Formats: sequence, C-alpha cells, structure tokens
Amino acid sequence: MSETEERTGALRARYGAGDAAALDIAWNGVVAGLLAHRTVRAFRPDPLPAGTIETLVAAAQSAPSSSNLQTWSVVAVEDPAAKRRLSEVARGQRHVVEAPVVLVWLADLARLETLGRDRGRPTAGLDYLETLIVGVVDAALAAQNATVALESLGLGSVYIGALRNDPEAVAELLGLPPNVLAVFGHCIGYPDPERPAAVKPRLGQGVVLHRGRYDPTLATAAIAAYDAAMTEFQAGQRMPEVGWTQAALERVRGPESLSGRDRLRAILERRGFGLK
Amino acid sequence: MSETEERTGALRARYGAGDAAALDIAWNGVVAGLLAHRTVRAFRPDPLPAGTIETLVAAAQSAPSSSNLQTWSVVAVEDPAAKRRLSEVARGQRHVVEAPVVLVWLADLARLETLGRDRGRPTAGLDYLETLIVGVVDAALAAQNATVALESLGLGSVYIGALRNDPEAVAELLGLPPNVLAVFGHCIGYPDPERPAAVKPRLGQGVVLHRGRYDPTLATAAIAAYDAAMTEFQAGQRMPEVGWTQAALERVRGPESLSGRDRLRAILERRGFGLK
Repeated sequence: MSETEERTGALRARYGAGDAAALDIAWNGVVAGLLAHRTVRAFRPDPLPAGTIETLVAAAQSAPSSSNLQTWSVVAVEDPAAKRRLSEVARGQRHVVEAPVVLVWLADLARLETLGRDRGRPTAGLDYLETLIVGVVDAALAAQNATVALESLGLGSVYIGALRNDPEAVAELLGLPPNVLAVFGHCIGYPDPERPAAVKPRLGQGVVLHRGRYDPTLATAAIAAYDAAMTEFQAGQRMPEVGWTQAALERVRGPESLSGRDRLRAILERRGFGLK
Repeated sequence: MSETEERTGALRARYGAGDAAALDIAWNGVVAGLLAHRTVRAFRPDPLPAGTIETLVAAAQSAPSSSNLQTWSVVAVEDPAAKRRLSEVARGQRHVVEAPVVLVWLADLARLETLGRDRGRPTAGLDYLETLIVGVVDAALAAQNATVALESLGLGSVYIGALRNDPEAVAELLGLPPNVLAVFGHCIGYPDPERPAAVKPRLGQGVVLHRGRYDPTLATAAIAAYDAAMTEFQAGQRMPEVGWTQAALERVRGPESLSGRDRLRAILERRGFGLK
C-alpha cells in the first residue's frame, strides 16, 4: 500500500466517507499510529511483559505538567478482587475485570499538601477550583502519553470515566487520602483478535477547528454527515443504530443521565477539595 | 549509540542521576520520542508548513473522548495582534507572540447545548461540575495527541495555562460563547537551535506510581534527590537554583499566588457553567 493510500484510508476511517479523506496532512509512523487509535474493550488474558507499567509511567511523566507541579499520581491495580470492585463502580463493565492491569489516574493535591505541612508552609492555593483543574489536566496529559506508548507496544486500552460514578467507593478501595480524585480508570492489555475493535469516526474538522475566532454556528450539514458515519459504524459494531446526535443528547439530558456523577461536586467537597 | 545507551541516557535526563537509569523499560521509536519531550519556549519565526494544523487536529480528534461526546474545540490563532493580546493575558510571555501559531484548546459544552436547543431536547446534564471535567479531560487528551504529533514533525511547543488568568479577556478576543472555557493555549513552532530546550527531570517513579493501593507516605529521600536534580537542571538553564519543593510550594501558597485564577469559579459561573 502506498503512503497516499495509507493516509487516505486512515482519514476515511476517522472521518467517514466524506471529503476529509482529501485532507493534505503530514504523514509519518507516529501520525499514522495516532490516527489508528481504537478503543479496546476485549482483552486476551495474557499478562503484560515485565517493565510495561514502568514504561507507561515514564512516558506519562514525560508529558507536560502545569508549572511542573506534577499534581497527579497513578495506582496500578492487578488484583482480581480489586478489579471486580472497580468494575462494579463502573456498572459492571466486563473489561475492567478482564484487563490484566487497570491504571487509575489520580488528580493528586495531597502530595503538595503533605509537603507543605511537613515544611510548615501554607498551601491555601490548593483550595480552589483552579487547582483541581490543574490536577485533572495533569492526569489527562500523563494518561494520554501512556496510551500512545502502550499502543506502540501492541497493547490496547480504554479509559473508564465511570469511576466517577462513585469516587468514594474508589477512594476506599485504593486508600486515597483527602484531596485526591480518581479522574478515570484505564484498562490495559493485549487486544483479543477474535473481538477486534474498529476506528470510531469523529466530527468533521470544520466542526471542531475554528480559525482566529470561534464560530458559534452549528454546521448542520456536517453534523448530519457525521450522524450517517456513526450509524454506519454502529451497524458494523452491531450496536443500536442511533447515530451521534441522539446518543450524545441522551447522555447530557439531565442529572438522571449522569450515572450518579451529578453528585461529584458534593463528594469532592466532602473529600477535602476546596473548589473555591 | 546502542539502544541500551540511548535508553539509559533518556532515563537519566528524565529522572536525574539516580538509579532510575536502570529501569528496565520497553524501548522503540515512539517511546524514545515521548521520553525526549521538552518544553520549547524559543521559536524560529518560520511559518508552519501547509497542512500542519489539520494534521494536529486529526491527531487530536483521534484521542479518546468521554462517551464520544467530543466536548472540545480548538481555535487556531495566527494573527499577530491576537497573539499579543493572548500574551498580555499570560503576563507578557514572549513565546506567545513569537510562535507562528497558538492553538487555544477549549472545553466546549456549547455545541451540545446548541444542538439540544435546535432539536428541542433538554441538556440539563451540562450544568454539573462533572460535565466541565469531561470537557477539560477531552481537551487535554486531544491537545496531548497534538503535542506528540507535532514533535514527530520536528516542531516544539509549550502549553499556556496562564490563559486561565483572565478567561473573560480570552473569551472576548476569540468570540467564545457561554459554556466554553479556554483550558490552555499551545504555542507551536520550530525550536530555535540557538536557544535549545532541555529535558526537565521529574519526580522518581516511586513517588507517583502506587501498587494496588495509594501510599500516603511522603518519600522524603526521593523528594530530596529530586530537589537536587532540579537544582542541577535550573543551574544548566540559568534559572534560580531553588529546586522543586520550594518553587512548587510557593506556587500553591494561597490565592495571591494563583495569578488571578482564584477567581475561576466565579468567572465560570458568570460564563454559563452550572458547576452543580
């Protein structure tokens, strides 16, 4: 396959059958790897090779960190009973049990709090919504570098935002102190070739990329094309063929559609976050 | 240079002169690229090649998105006057003006809000802190994929969290509607070889990686070793040689050390975010 064919195929998988395939993007092995990302929820039982977790953490720590505060930590969960408990929090998602390793990425303001207490220095700046966001961003940047690294090693993964359904249960299971939030879990393992994952199409670039100023006009035609691409994807995955708009709007309908996460602010306040 | 020497050198740059260099991590071109990340703040004036922004956005859109809601957007800023204004918000950081392109990564809940209004569907689920976090995580994952892609193309970058110093000024400049937050900026260009950047050391893996359960004990020896590594790094960069602990604690001292970001919650509420 020529490089042009490879690039066109990758763009078509990512954006559906529209004219995105003609985008004149730069191409190399890294870009090809990024565009080939797919969410893996079906794992072989094989363990990860020795050194894998250390590799992913080294990659994660190489991501940028806001003011180098490094307000994140990660817990590597391999114990089957602990994975079962995490799976329960995530409403029974089977891959949380099946994956040999679940990393839990934490926004961790406790480390600086402890350090300040030990040194007799104030850390009142931790008590602001801003600092929670610093921790959440730090954790996400780190996790994404781990995802890029693990895919380069032939592994696959899926993030589990559903750990936020019940942050207190996760905190109890993992012994998290106050001022630490499990932002999301991360199931990692070898993809099961019997149950292959597909590249999921995304909204057209014109919908998310704005030039110079934000354009608030909804690109109705682009959304319709994307709904068609998602319906085709759902058909191929034997999922309900509802497109994107309907599924996304259902997901943000109201507090009752948030799987308990409408309680997140109250829980964070109980767990020590100031959120001022 | 042998692969072993390359790996040892990369680990030494990332973790300082301690025993981290002996970590038995997996190694390939992608992992090597991730570990070689450095923050670039000195750019050549050269423009980016045609297609670069589209490449970075395709990489960004290939990152995972929570429930595929795609609650992010990005504004590409190239106009010199607009970059100057962003630089002012960031307390005069020169690289914001010097970089040929500044991407501004947005947590964007407005798209789903508009879609719901157009379809006559409720979107009350957007009014929760949870949904802001979804948007912030989505934007960060996307941005980090863009960073990995741009570094593979020989470009360099730095994130600008200081756009949160004054989200209202950024919103006015970029025409952001309510329910959209500029999470951070992202200066991108060719690194100036006359002012090279260095790999910044990070905390030892033992400080951030927990096995099975979170260990709240502060690894005092590891922190001291890291302070020494950072002091050496600062000396090499002709920065004040204060180590890490002192700088980090200074940064979170109190509201007065947050550069205005202690107002973030009030600003978000004014800008339409429910934060329930």
